[in-house]
This record gives sequence, C-alpha cells and structure tokens, in this order.
Amino acid sequence: MENMSTNTVKVGDILVGGGFPVSVQTMWKTPLTPEKKSFLSEIKNLKGLGCDIIRFSVPDTDSAVYLGAIAKESPIPIVADIHFDYRIALECIKLGIQKIRINPGNIGALWKVEEVIKAASDNDVPLRVGVNGGSLPTALRDMEDRAAAMILAAEMEMEPLERLGFKNVVFSLKSSDIKATVEANTVFSEKYDYPLHLGVTEAGPMIPGVVKSTIVLQNLLKRGIGDTIRVSLSDTPASEVITGIEILKASGIKKDGVSIVSCPRCGRASFDTHSFTKKIESVLYRKKKSLSVAVMGCIVNGPGEARHADLGITGSGDTVVIFKKGKIIHKTTTDMAEKIFVEELEKL
Amino acid sequence: MENMSTNTVKVGDILVGGGFPVSVQTMWKTPLTPEKKSFLSEIKNLKGLGCDIIRFSVPDTDSAVYLGAIAKESPIPIVADIHFDYRIALECIKLGIQKIRINPGNIGALWKVEEVIKAASDNDVPLRVGVNGGSLPTALRDMEDRAAAMILAAEMEMEPLERLGFKNVVFSLKSSDIKATVEANTVFSEKYDYPLHLGVTEAGPMIPGVVKSTIVLQNLLKRGIGDTIRVSLSDTPASEVITGIEILKASGIKKDGVSIVSCPRCGRASFDTHSFTKKIESVLYRKKKSLSVAVMGCIVNGPGEARHADLGITGSGDTVVIFKKGKIIHKTTTDMAEKIFVEELEKL
Repeated sequence: MENMSTNTVKVGDILVGGGFPVSVQTMWKTPLTPEKKSFLSEIKNLKGLGCDIIRFSVPDTDSAVYLGAIAKESPIPIVADIHFDYRIALECIKLGIQKIRINPGNIGALWKVEEVIKAASDNDVPLRVGVNGGSLPTALRDMEDRAAAMILAAEMEMEPLERLGFKNVVFSLKSSDIKATVEANTVFSEKYDYPLHLGVTEAGPMIPGVVKSTIVLQNLLKRGIGDTIRVSLSDTPASEVITGIEILKASGIKKDGVSIVSCPRCGRASFDTHSFTKKIESVLYRKKKSLSVAVMGCIVNGPGEARHADLGITGSGDTVVIFKKGKIIHKTTTDMAEKIFVEELEKL
Repeated sequence: MENMSTNTVKVGDILVGGGFPVSVQTMWKTPLTPEKKSFLSEIKNLKGLGCDIIRFSVPDTDSAVYLGAIAKESPIPIVADIHFDYRIALECIKLGIQKIRINPGNIGALWKVEEVIKAASDNDVPLRVGVNGGSLPTALRDMEDRAAAMILAAEMEMEPLERLGFKNVVFSLKSSDIKATVEANTVFSEKYDYPLHLGVTEAGPMIPGVVKSTIVLQNLLKRGIGDTIRVSLSDTPASEVITGIEILKASGIKKDGVSIVSCPRCGRASFDTHSFTKKIESVLYRKKKSLSVAVMGCIVNGPGEARHADLGITGSGDTVVIFKKGKIIHKTTTDMAEKIFVEELEKL
C-alpha cells in the first residue's frame, strides 16, 4: 500500500498529500452565528475524536466575518465553503481562513474564478476545487460515462489554475454513484499530481451512508489513492468523524486508536452492551494509543471470547466484571462500572 | 459476478445456496418469553424491512417451547441458536423449528453432536455449524495464521457430518478480524460445496460495526462467495437488517428496493433532512420497487442536484417542496409534507 505521490498542500498546520497521513474532515451542519465560544468548544470536541480539518458553509459576508473570528482561535484548520459569490471567497481569504473550497461551476464568469485564484496565490491560501457528479456543467450532464464526465469537469476547473501557475490546490471528484466515484478518482490520480479529497455526495442516512462511503473510500485508500477524506452523512459531524476514522482503521491506513469489539447481544446476554458502548464511545475515540477494548454481553463467554482485548467489561444482573486479557481484575456494580472502567483505560 | 456453486439448503421456505438470492438474517436481542404475540408482531415488522430469516438464542427448555410456538406462526423461518446442551437442540428439532445452529465446540462429547445430526437428518431440519475465531478449539488457538485455524476448526466440525452423510448444512466462519474472515471464507468456498453464512463477530457499536461488516461482506459477495448474511451490531435487529440490505445493494447483489440519497446538511440547509429521513425510513425500506428517493437540505440546489431521483423533497422555512425527476409537483407545509410524500411514493 504505497501512497501515490502527489503535491503537498498545507492547510493550517495539516499537510495534505505527499504521503502525509490521510486527514479526516467533517462539515458544520448549522448556520454560522457570532457565538464564537460554542463553535470553538464543539470544534475542540471534534478534534478530540480525531477530526483534522472542519469546513463551514459561508453563504454571506456576515458568515465570513463570524468564521474569520472562529478561524483565528480554532484548534484545527477551517475551510470556507463558497458557492455563487466570489466576493465572499475573497473576504474569507482576507480574514485568514485556512482554506477555501469553491465550485468554479457556480462562481460564474471565468474572471471571477481567476480573482479568487490570484487572491489565494497572493495570500498563500490553499483552495479545494470540487467536482460534484450531481451538478456537472450542462455540456457534460448527459454523458453516459459518469466518471469520464467528472474527469472532464475537473479538467475544465484545472485550466485557469494551471494557466495562472497556482499549484496549492486539492481536488475532489464526488458523486452519489459508487462506481463512478471510484473510477473518476482512480483515473485522476493516475493523470495528475494534485492531492485528492475523497467523499461520496448525498450518501444518505447513517446506515446507507456508512456502507457507501466505506466501499468507495476503502477501495481507493487501500490502493494509496486519497489524501484527505470526508464522510458525508445525514447525521452529526461526530458520526462523520468516527466513520472516517473507522474506515481508515479498517483499510489498514490508521493503526493507532482504540479498536472496539462488542458483541451484538442475544438472548443469553445480561450486560447492556448497547448503552455502555454508547456511554464510553467518546472516551474511547479520544484515546490515541493502539488498544482493543471489548464490551461483551455475557459473563459466560465474554472474558474468554475477548481474551485478546487489552480491557474488557461484561456482567450479569447487578454484577459487572472488568477484565484484562481475559483475566478478571474487578467485580463491581453497574453504578460503579463506568468510573472504574475509565480509570483502568487511562492506566493502559 | 457469478455465485460459486454450492449445495442448496432449505430453511422453511427460504433457499440458501445453489445460486438462490442471498438472504438477510438478524438475531433477536432479548430473552424468549411466552408473549408470542409481541414477538410475532416484531418479526412481521422485520420481514417488512427485508429480513428473510431470524435467529433466537435458546439457552433452556422453556425458551425452546416458547420459540416452538413462535416458529409455527412466524412469517419467516426461525433458527434456534444452541450452546452447551445438545438436548435443547433435540427439543427444538422436535418442536419443528426451521433450522438449528450449533457450535460443536461447546456441545461437548462427539456422541452428543452425532445425536443432533441424526435428529436433524431424521426430521429433515437443516443445521448451521459455526466457527467463531474467538472461541476456537484449544489446539488451534495459538496458530499464527488465523484463517487457517478457522478452516481447520471447520474441518473438525465437518467430520461427523460427512461421516453420517448429512449434507443439509450451512457453514459459517466468523471472526472479528477482517482479513482472517475474508481469507477463511475464500479458502472454504474453493474447497467445499456447503453454502456459507457470512458475518463478522463482535463487530462493535453501530459505526465500526457497519464499516467492518461492509468491508468483509462486499469483498466476499462481489466474488460470488456467501449465500446468507447477518450483520452483527450492538444495535437493533432493524439496523442489522437495513445494513445487510444496504451491503447487498452496494455490492450489486440486490437491485430492487429504494435507494435513498440525502444531503448531509450544511449551513445553507433549511430543510431538516435528518429527522425527515428518520421518519420515512421504514416506509422506504418496505417499498420493494427499484426507486431513488432524494431528501435534500436546500431548495436552491436540491431539485437540480437530485433531478435523477424518482421522488424528492426539500424546503425552506415552513414551505416544503416535493419534486419528481427535478420537477416540482407540490408546494406544501412541513405539517403536511410527510403525508403527501408518502402518497406520492405509493403512486410510483
């Protein structure tokens, strides 16, 4: 699994491309407001889960100003997502926002796109240029080969960038179609040196979204294609980040972090694995060490089946058992279980 | 994508193997009780979502009796999951339960396993014999090649079946390790004609569970390996069924049913796609026709980006817009939206 060599793009302190670790992105889901503090606190929370970069939609100048203030203090780099109005992109660059995403297709006249490229170049701000299979230029909409249409759209967007000699760009070629997305990114990575931002558009609710994103992303990542990823879900940014990290782990790209095994519960189960895993999930994703943690439904099979786990928990009735490598180290009550489990986790 | 030829096993009215459609299973998560009615109503609900077969853990004779009564009236075939006590397996066979899953490794003495095989043979009841990477026979536990250890365990379980000439068997080789599960099932399918039940054990909470199951199952299914699947999640049976169906669809195995595209919501969004998709999800999965449905966050991009969708919805403020192939067919209010949307869906 070698990372295909691409240019490196610097987004704040995160390096994208050039064989640097694949970064995980998400996107904010509500409008920007002047309430900087609550934004920063949630961004910090997302960083804790493993989020490297976060994008905000910036539909107007007020939003740009709010985002500029957030970007100055954010613990991770911010991307401004601009549609329709190139002046908002210029404003965001001026405000020091770390990266700008534009869709040249809806910015309008070419000179407007060029203005954005020049401002980005003058201020050393990277751009992401995104092709979306659902909103291709009219001339390409009816092409039967969806992947080829996406490549052509990307090449149209590439033209002013290349002409102006601006290389500080990440490309994305997204679609809601699994095959077209895989094919378009594969061909693009063979032809060009721009780093790739991977994703599936309109992936759907949680379950179909995670399934489609997993198939597309792991197919590309395991072949060394893709430098930064964002899983789009009709769900929370936290779920998008966790899915991204799980895809990196399952694709063998990311080796650290906690691996959670938990049994699905059955009629034999007497320990409520659902609610316990839910409760400790954010603690687990915060842990950067490579560990395996088992949350098992029954005391009979649990410690044995999960004897490879660094830490495990199960129970029966009000008794909860905490074990390490299959050996029981605590017997306690449901009330005390979470506290003791987290303490043992911190010791590891 | 050709289905590797296997024997066919009849589970109630569902045919497993031999190139018949890959069936979707789930497992009940709470103990059996005499309250037959509520069980049957939930089983009917799961069948509506696309569940073909459902398994119950049967830890004692009372549970066997309760399950026997359910199996007589269930709209889909029932599998009894037996551990430790072969007499419960005999009881379930006598009660007419449609399939028995045993783990010979914990049934004990070989003659007990043989008793179960003979009873299954006499009553024409299929068995599933399951190898679990987490509970291999002691002699195989420390083998470095996990997949080879699983194959050896399966071959040990195969011995009495072959000796007694019992062919009415589905095999499973599950592990929480992605690579070992893929490898073990690949090798098994090349060597043997038994149909395969695919799954990943202790897959974890929703997100890591869906990610791991997607990678393992689609890898095997797209190569024609696997005849029935169960996604294990520390979540509801309904989520397990929906994940199974989405994996079949994304692997190109299942062509019918609704494909949901929905945008992830961003700062531009004014229609609450999360809660709307959640509300109509079960209606959508019940629809067996091949349709695409779009739930889009913004009225500006929504109908255009989702113009390929057979039916779509988006909105702004209290106005909700319903569109067909990109053309707006209704303008209504949030209160009325669900009703009108479902009516239009039923018309398709």
